[in-house]
Formats: sequence, C-alpha cells, structure tokens
Amino acid sequence: MKIIILKDNLLSSLNSVEKSIGSGENLRILKNIKIEASDNNQINFTSTDLELAIEHTSSGKVVDKGVVVAPFDILSRIVKNISSEKIHLEYRDRKLTIKADNYEGVINCGNPNEYPIIPTIQDKSKSLVINSEILKNTLDRVSTATQYSEIRPEINGVYFNLENNQLTLAGTDSFRLIEEVLSESQVTSNFESLEVIIPLRTVESVLKIIGGEGDVEIFTDSNQILFKNEEKSVISRLVDGEFPDYKSVIPKESNKEIQVSREELINAVKLTRVFTGKANDIVFKLSKDGKVLEVYSVSDTIGENTYRVPISTKGEKGEIEFSFNWKYVLDGLKVYRSEDVILGLNEPEKPVTIKTKKERKVVYVVMPIRK
Amino acid sequence: MKIIILKDNLLSSLNSVEKSIGSGENLRILKNIKIEASDNNQINFTSTDLELAIEHTSSGKVVDKGVVVAPFDILSRIVKNISSEKIHLEYRDRKLTIKADNYEGVINCGNPNEYPIIPTIQDKSKSLVINSEILKNTLDRVSTATQYSEIRPEINGVYFNLENNQLTLAGTDSFRLIEEVLSESQVTSNFESLEVIIPLRTVESVLKIIGGEGDVEIFTDSNQILFKNEEKSVISRLVDGEFPDYKSVIPKESNKEIQVSREELINAVKLTRVFTGKANDIVFKLSKDGKVLEVYSVSDTIGENTYRVPISTKGEKGEIEFSFNWKYVLDGLKVYRSEDVILGLNEPEKPVTIKTKKERKVVYVVMPIRK
Repeated sequence: MKIIILKDNLLSSLNSVEKSIGSGENLRILKNIKIEASDNNQINFTSTDLELAIEHTSSGKVVDKGVVVAPFDILSRIVKNISSEKIHLEYRDRKLTIKADNYEGVINCGNPNEYPIIPTIQDKSKSLVINSEILKNTLDRVSTATQYSEIRPEINGVYFNLENNQLTLAGTDSFRLIEEVLSESQVTSNFESLEVIIPLRTVESVLKIIGGEGDVEIFTDSNQILFKNEEKSVISRLVDGEFPDYKSVIPKESNKEIQVSREELINAVKLTRVFTGKANDIVFKLSKDGKVLEVYSVSDTIGENTYRVPISTKGEKGEIEFSFNWKYVLDGLKVYRSEDVILGLNEPEKPVTIKTKKERKVVYVVMPIRK
Repeated sequence: MKIIILKDNLLSSLNSVEKSIGSGENLRILKNIKIEASDNNQINFTSTDLELAIEHTSSGKVVDKGVVVAPFDILSRIVKNISSEKIHLEYRDRKLTIKADNYEGVINCGNPNEYPIIPTIQDKSKSLVINSEILKNTLDRVSTATQYSEIRPEINGVYFNLENNQLTLAGTDSFRLIEEVLSESQVTSNFESLEVIIPLRTVESVLKIIGGEGDVEIFTDSNQILFKNEEKSVISRLVDGEFPDYKSVIPKESNKEIQVSREELINAVKLTRVFTGKANDIVFKLSKDGKVLEVYSVSDTIGENTYRVPISTKGEKGEIEFSFNWKYVLDGLKVYRSEDVILGLNEPEKPVTIKTKKERKVVYVVMPIRK
C-alpha cells in the first residue's frame, strides 16, 4: 500500500473510528486500525471491538492499493503532532512508513489476516431514512434516561419502534423514562414495522460521528443494525432482550398540573442539591393556594435550605409533597428547550410527568422516592 | 454578624482562598473559611492549612460586625449556584443564614474560637516591591523546573536571592534547572540581602491569586514570607534548608552552539516522543556539517522515527549525539518566547544550556541521560 492523504482527512478518519477501537485485553489485534486503499482513490478506515464497528471513508491519492493493520494509538499520536498538510503512508513487510516535511517514522504493524471480518447486513432492500440532525437530537434526548449497567442489558439501550409509519424512541433506567415520537413526515421507511434495542455505546458512537446536514440510512437484520451516511457507517449488535412495557408507567392523566419556569426550577434544584445526602433527595412542596413550589432539602449535619418558585396550578387544590432524586429531575428539565415546563402530579408516590406545551412529542417520567 | 455582599465579590473571595483550605484530615476546622466583618464595611475572608494562609478583603455592607467560621465547600457550592446579584449573610448561634431572591439556606458552622490564629510578620520595616505581572511571569517560568517531592523539600521550591540590589530566582529538580535574574530597575527593596526558598505550593497560590496591574509587597522573617497587594495576601512558611549550589552546574561556556527555530524543535520533540520507552529518552544527533539536527527515537516494539531540523552551528565541527528526557527539553523550550533558541553543548554527558538572544536574563540547563 502507498497513499498520500491530507492530514485533516487522516485525522478526521482516526477520530471517527476511535470509539470502536478495542481495549486489546482479549485480542491484541483490536487495538489496531484497518486501513484499506482501493483503486478509486478511496481510503477506508475501520475499527471494531467485535460489538461495534465504525467505518470512515476518506479520499486521497492511492499510488498502490493494499491493506494495513496499524496500532491506532501510535498512529494517531503521530498524526496529531504533524504540522505538514500532506502525509505519505507506505506499507511493506509489516512496517508502515509515515513521511511528512522533515519527519519520517516507521511503525511495526499487525497481520492483516488476523484482523476480524467486519460484519455487514446482507439484505439492504429495506431501510429507514431520517435526517441526521433530527436523529441526533432525538437520540441525545432519549439517551438521557438510560445508563450503563451489566445487569439489565435490555434497558441499557434506546428502544426504536416503527409502527404505522410512526417512529417512537424510548429510554429508561427504571427510575425515570423518556419517550419521543417522530412525526410521519420526519421518517421515510419501507419497513412495515421494526422493534429493536440499540446499545447505548452504539447510540453514543452515532451521536459522535454521524454528523452533517444529510440523511442517515438505517438497515437492520435480526441481530445487527447499521447507520450509514456518505462517508461513515456504524454497525453494531442489537441488544438481545425485550424492552420493558414502559408505556404502562406513563400516567394517562394528572390530578394536578403545575406550570413553572424551566430555568427557575433548574436553579432551584441546583441550589438545593447542595444539602442532600446519599439518596440525593430533595422535596417538592406545593403551597395550599397552588401559587408557590418550595424546593427543599435538609441534612442533619450540614443544614437546610429552600428555594421558592412561583407557579400556576390547574386541577386539585391542597398541599402536597414529593421527594425526588435531584439528578433525575434536573435531567428531565434539561431535555427541553421551552421556557416553561408542566409537571403532571397524582399521588405522592406515583410517577410524575414533565412535559412542555411546545415539545408535545416528548414526555419525561420520573419516579418519586418512597418515604 | 450580618452583611450584604455582591455575589461577584463573595465568589472572588471564595476563589482566592480556596487553595489554602485544609483537607480536614487532621483538623476538621481547617475545612472552613473564616469570614470577619468589621466596622468600615470591609469583609475579610481567610483560610489556612497551617502551612499556608490566604486572605482576601472584599467590600460589602456590614450591618453587624462579627466572625463566622463556615464550611467552605458548602458555602462555595451555594454561592456558585445563586443567580441573584446580592447575597445576605446572617450569623447567629452557630448557624449562618444565606438569603438571596427566592432562596434561603441555613448552614451549621464551626466554632470561631477553635480556628487557628493566622500567622503574621511583625516587622514590616523592610520590604521588597515588585510589579505583580513581572513577579508572576518570573515565578511561572522558574517553577517549570521544580517538582513536588517529599524527599528533598529544599528543591521543591523557588530560590529567591537578593544581593547587590539584584534579585535572582532559580528552580531545579536536579534533572534540569532554570535561573532568571531581574534587573535592578524591576525591583525596589530596602533589604540588604535576602536568601529564601519559597515552597512550590505558595508559588502556585501567588500565581493564582495575586493578579492585577499593581505592585506586590514582599515581607519576610526568619521562617515566613508574606506576599501582599491591596486586596489579597498570601503568607507561608519558608522551606527550611539550603538550596543546592546550582550555579556550579551552569556551564560557563560551550564548545558548540546551535541556533534553531524554537517552534520547529518543539514539533520535533512532540513527534518523536511518541516512540520513547520508560526513560522518555530521545536522541539529538548533530550532522557532520552542522546544518541539521536529527531528533530521533526508537522502541523495539513500536518502531522508530526521526525529525530533521535545519540549524546553524558555531564552534567545534563534527558529529555528536545527546540523549534527553523529552519532557525536560520540551519544558525548557516552552519557557521562552523568542523565535530561535540557542543550545550550548559540551561533551555528550555534560549539562546543556538552552538560551535565547533576546531573553538574556534566563538560562535553562538540562542534564543529558547517561548511556
């Protein structure tokens, strides 16, 4: 292999594939990046940790085609420090020579035959197409309510459900959940239906590398999913399992609705969290007249504090108190952009909804802490 | 105590004293900040960890004077999250009440009588006055060559020597050293002579908090040093010990002098360091004709690389090789601002000087690695 490539192209390829470079703990070869130069001046950069694979295609001048499997970390540290515009890469006898102005390096490479085969999806007749900006925003919001955990893999991912041309995404860690429904006009698909759980790490990779203004094509088979745009693709295993019946947790209606400034409530939570203990619990206390929400926390050793937020209330009157893990409430407030949020309340130990009037396709549900 | 203070003033006072808040491991009270409100609407904020004390004075409205010893961490987290402009602080019965728009907090406080007495320097008849910008730049450069270590406290500090109205600062960690001499016009002093070692942590505190355009006054007694400007003061123990005779290590002259672009050499070091092993060693190899400096490194497992930098040479001709810890060379190159640096070389195992033509009062010396 012999290629000449712009430093910026090489660097963005390396950055793209970084997330699926393996740790090398079980299989040392996974610490490498696979570089494949083909006839049409296209250079493919691939990495995989066996769960996830990322591919990035850059253009460059291909003098001789070929394949290299090079240590990612070393290559990337060199490229980052090169100040020249162009970089020459030449591979021979398991050694990759890197040349730039004034600089020459030779790095020992792995055996291309030992590098695992990157999985593909054979049947690409069915796909789901979505604008990348919309996909990223939705994945970003929905992944808020998920969290890594080894114990329940089926909730460490984002639920993706296409039914009657409507795409619904959901995430939960069993303490809170979020659901977002995309409108029919935002999704093009020739799938009849689709129901998959995408691992959180894959979601994060898509968020990191699938950018730009164009569309993303999504393909899937029984155990894999592929996100693809012109330059980049992310292929990953799906989570094997059934997503919890989260819909039954979302309250159909609320006895009481509070409208409150989102920013003010964020301030209140941020301030009062200073006094919480290990349970991270803060109290939301509604005044009798329904005009003030007290956000309160207390710690025997440190002290106590209160933030009073003006609100307007619809529904049942009367004092009422809820305890929350402040982090879950704060996350819920942060997924929205609107000025005001609406909290939907029922009994003190029943799930609470956070919604807005404008972002009507999103609902965030948080479970109060039981006393 | 009862005061009203601008949030910004309170925050900058808290930020200033943060560096000398104690860990509380041995004496819990040291995790607190001492706030003292006096008649003239001046509020003093002080902290100490017994080695170092920092004081910051802010103005505010003092309704009732008094002293509070409050948990630094809690107070500081609250103040950071307050969005109001003004903050009310009121102390009674070991409780500090913090009030701002919509917010009220009460925090349990320590006993002011248990807080240690902040040391002072009694005799302020002799002082050294220096522009704070000049002091900070010099301390910043000189502290480059020092490093925390429990074993040899006398080199974990910056040497401060006033003799014949000339102030010299020096730092070393025994692998490299730096000396900077300030001109007579930059220092005003009525000390006849002065020879102290200032702990690195104190130097860092001065760098962090003594800012602005004015002057810094320096006072000292046999075991303490005080840095002071209008608002802030840092008082610290001095290092007890004798600074090594570093002057004898600085080569008086060089057989060979290399002039090289500073930026290019920084690039060369940054690129070649990728291949070094545990000793962090890179090789500087001079070509026979004295026109090229090869910066080279090799690792059996990874590979090898070379960066060729054009140079001009004065003095003895002939090939010559030096090994360095790349970090020490890079630090030395970074203390300067000039376009070119001059390396002064003698035999391969003798100390090497790094200087510039413009920054003539600074010399950096680095020891090569012995083969």
